[in-house]
Amino acid sequence: MLFELQKSIEILERTPAVLKTLLSNLSPDWTHNNEGGETWSPYAVVGHLIHGEKTDWIVRTQLILSQEEDKTFQPFDRFAQLNEGAKKNLPELLDEFQALREINLTALKAMNISAANLEATGIHPALGKVTLAQLLSCWTVHDLGHIAQITRVMAKQYKDEVGPWIEYLSVLHK
Amino acid sequence: MLFELQKSIEILERTPAVLKTLLSNLSPDWTHNNEGGETWSPYAVVGHLIHGEKTDWIVRTQLILSQEEDKTFQPFDRFAQLNEGAKKNLPELLDEFQALREINLTALKAMNISAANLEATGIHPALGKVTLAQLLSCWTVHDLGHIAQITRVMAKQYKDEVGPWIEYLSVLHK
Repeated sequence: MLFELQKSIEILERTPAVLKTLLSNLSPDWTHNNEGGETWSPYAVVGHLIHGEKTDWIVRTQLILSQEEDKTFQPFDRFAQLNEGAKKNLPELLDEFQALREINLTALKAMNISAANLEATGIHPALGKVTLAQLLSCWTVHDLGHIAQITRVMAKQYKDEVGPWIEYLSVLHK
Repeated sequence: MLFELQKSIEILERTPAVLKTLLSNLSPDWTHNNEGGETWSPYAVVGHLIHGEKTDWIVRTQLILSQEEDKTFQPFDRFAQLNEGAKKNLPELLDEFQALREINLTALKAMNISAANLEATGIHPALGKVTLAQLLSCWTVHDLGHIAQITRVMAKQYKDEVGPWIEYLSVLHK
């Protein structure tokens, strides 16, 4: 499947609703437990997605399409949400993510990105030169990957409860 | 996290809505492609979930709680949905899954399952003796695992499009 802006937006615009449907009104056992150690709970993942909306995807898109001479991205702090002082509750985070995503997709659509724009490049601080198409593909995959992570983390809460079925449930082995 | 019937139902009753939010009105490139070879597309996974509603979870629950002498489960055909003749489209499958799940959860709640019931056992044809609590835990994890699978399969459609970011996107390596 080749990159298409519209097909990426199809995913990006539904992620907030998917997360609300998946996580709203669940017992905290499902949303606030992790996979052990320093791994992330579903709650922490939503905080991470919010941080991406604020500092990563659209900011980098704007930089790639700007007239700036130095198109090196600011590093993205993948742990920012773990350090935030005043903690919001999960419903607040889900609302915040939805609002930020809507603003960012409105901005993205307003850019009227052309085929040539998609080949424009920026410099990732660790990975080097990347195209706008790669950035927008990454944004899309990042959403899907974190939905997969959230459901895997939730599944693992019952790891000891499934008895001998653990053998058949590959999600518990990832 | 220990098994609780109500916490399991929290997950089971939202899965159809999660799948509809995730998959409705998407381009077929997202829903009908797989991970290569004999792997399953999101469309195939929904068919598999339907087959489970028809032949597995509630049927086995009823057998465990029955007065039958032989409580050996019928084997579950994990590939049944791949062999079905008249193919339904994805919106039809999503509706069918939702309707079957609703019927099955209504039946489950009507059983008024007690703590003692949860320790009752049946015989899995390959795994041997299993408890009702393990069966219901497995049903719950099975839902979550297949949502994780669906989003992973979708993410992989952009595997070649993310460029050097592939290194950071663990969902593309599973």
